[in-house]
Amino acid sequence: MPALATLTNHQIRLASRPVGLPTRANWQSTLEAVAEPVEGGVLLKTLALSLDPAMRGWMNEGKSYIPPVAIGEVMRAGGVGKVIASRNPQFAVGDYVSAGFGVQEYLTLVQADFKRSGLVKIDLSMGTLTQWLNVLGMPGMTGYFGLMDVGQPRAGETVVVSGAAGAVGQTVGQMAKIKGCRAVGIAGGQAKCDWVVKELGFDACIDYKAGPSAVKDGLKQHCPAGVDVYFDNVGGEILDTVLTRINRGARIIICGAISQYNNTTAVQGPKNYLSLLVNRARMEGIVVFDYADRYHLAVTEMAGYLKDGRMKSKEDVVKGLDAFPEALNKLFSGENFGKLVLQVAED
Amino acid sequence: MPALATLTNHQIRLASRPVGLPTRANWQSTLEAVAEPVEGGVLLKTLALSLDPAMRGWMNEGKSYIPPVAIGEVMRAGGVGKVIASRNPQFAVGDYVSAGFGVQEYLTLVQADFKRSGLVKIDLSMGTLTQWLNVLGMPGMTGYFGLMDVGQPRAGETVVVSGAAGAVGQTVGQMAKIKGCRAVGIAGGQAKCDWVVKELGFDACIDYKAGPSAVKDGLKQHCPAGVDVYFDNVGGEILDTVLTRINRGARIIICGAISQYNNTTAVQGPKNYLSLLVNRARMEGIVVFDYADRYHLAVTEMAGYLKDGRMKSKEDVVKGLDAFPEALNKLFSGENFGKLVLQVAED
Repeated sequence: MPALATLTNHQIRLASRPVGLPTRANWQSTLEAVAEPVEGGVLLKTLALSLDPAMRGWMNEGKSYIPPVAIGEVMRAGGVGKVIASRNPQFAVGDYVSAGFGVQEYLTLVQADFKRSGLVKIDLSMGTLTQWLNVLGMPGMTGYFGLMDVGQPRAGETVVVSGAAGAVGQTVGQMAKIKGCRAVGIAGGQAKCDWVVKELGFDACIDYKAGPSAVKDGLKQHCPAGVDVYFDNVGGEILDTVLTRINRGARIIICGAISQYNNTTAVQGPKNYLSLLVNRARMEGIVVFDYADRYHLAVTEMAGYLKDGRMKSKEDVVKGLDAFPEALNKLFSGENFGKLVLQVAED
Repeated sequence: MPALATLTNHQIRLASRPVGLPTRANWQSTLEAVAEPVEGGVLLKTLALSLDPAMRGWMNEGKSYIPPVAIGEVMRAGGVGKVIASRNPQFAVGDYVSAGFGVQEYLTLVQADFKRSGLVKIDLSMGTLTQWLNVLGMPGMTGYFGLMDVGQPRAGETVVVSGAAGAVGQTVGQMAKIKGCRAVGIAGGQAKCDWVVKELGFDACIDYKAGPSAVKDGLKQHCPAGVDVYFDNVGGEILDTVLTRINRGARIIICGAISQYNNTTAVQGPKNYLSLLVNRARMEGIVVFDYADRYHLAVTEMAGYLKDGRMKSKEDVVKGLDAFPEALNKLFSGENFGKLVLQVAED
């Protein structure tokens, strides 16, 4: 390791709020000296960052479940990395950790900020670094608690999940199978659909790009007993189509609406929402942070499934901090195949 | 009573499916001989019919929570009336009953149809005939179980209800007050709002006709602690506006969407539905029939409130079977003031 004094921290900051799809012009690259940790603090090196649809929402002004990223601020991002200097007995140099790194190469934390930044050690015997950003990280926790707590699937029911090849979708479908449900994915492109069925073991996967009535026809074909649980990551037309196929007492988990995040017009509301009335069904939002005190339980459970092969994961790794702007946009074009990860440094 | 043989039954049948607001042309008036009851059956005289927003939905083709009224069929309607001939020991001439009368003057029932038509005796010591169509009838049951079972209000919370001066809204707001909540209504016109506050005891009522930002401003003013439960009878813009003011963990009961029932274009979906995500809130549909085995409990409870003055009711009574087509449309113009009832005959 070079002397800390010689390290510079490459950062990516939000330069302006995007209208529609973010562009390079919305980002600003900066270089800063790396600050040494003070008593009680740590210095972390970023190894990999999680790129998530929710980031698009953080770039907008206005009230949400967390404040927006301020103009000029380092872009918020969760990640995994390594302790490279420590003045805290809880953390040793070489420890692997998960934290809110931000899109930058280094993060110096004072002890008072450990909790806010979600700093925790991670155990690479439970999963790889990138799995700690996927099924064992925020997306996995979102899928797990959204499905189990809000969706409350019962064995034999049909669970449909959109964004099935994405980070959250992988977890939802595989957990549904493990809990004895029929799992039907919706994803973009035949390659993703094949992988979801052949590798992850979903019962079926509908390629929404296959034609204008692909989702409608696919649901009819692959959910002959209707839809009991729908885990929605996309909103828009797909949500509306699923609403026409739900069963009495169905549960719809509203996790995101990636089809709407770059809209420059109003969000498209689900025009078939009265299906909730006809079917005595419910639609409920989930924010993963609410389950923080139970993350460890889900991590332990799913690490077991990773180990015994009942659960698999796939990450789409893009290399280099500088690639961040284009990498992020892969989420919105649906270009990523698996959980999108930005590798910032080699371990 | 005249001899049964001389009675004719005046009926109103669905002649065609309306596009938009129903017109006279959608209805057909018929006269039939009254059939005498067979062994085990009864003959009922219609006294009053309940006119409800849901009727508009029954006139459309297509799957819903109950089949549509067929073309040529007597229009479906719940009502109250009197037994005028009986060949069943459970029912005596002179008994008052509630049943699915249909829009007609007489109803002859065979015993096998008692259950399907919801035939039950009603006790006029618990409430008046029209109260049995209002707070003690389907609308009251809808308000009661929608609020209590789906909304699950806790004392101190803020409950908002649209269509506050209507049959369901009256029940919801008054039950909310009885359960220790802040009750805020939304209704059309100052007269209705004044009545909702002064007579029914709501804490406030917002006149949605008062201007384009009346609902937004009214919610800000009258729900300073946000909205915990929203009982939605109207859908459309009002639902969207309330979605911007809901609290963490809010419950939205989807009971109807009267603003959308006569649309000739697609239903307007709630474009602010992602507020469910931000606020970990839920939106859930209710159909009153699911609670049939507990109606008697709600009737007994609310009859007590009517008696001790904690609950009041208002009915808007239109007279004469022939007035049915125009009377029904009062619901959609918001012209009715209180639960809309069609009085078919004097007791």
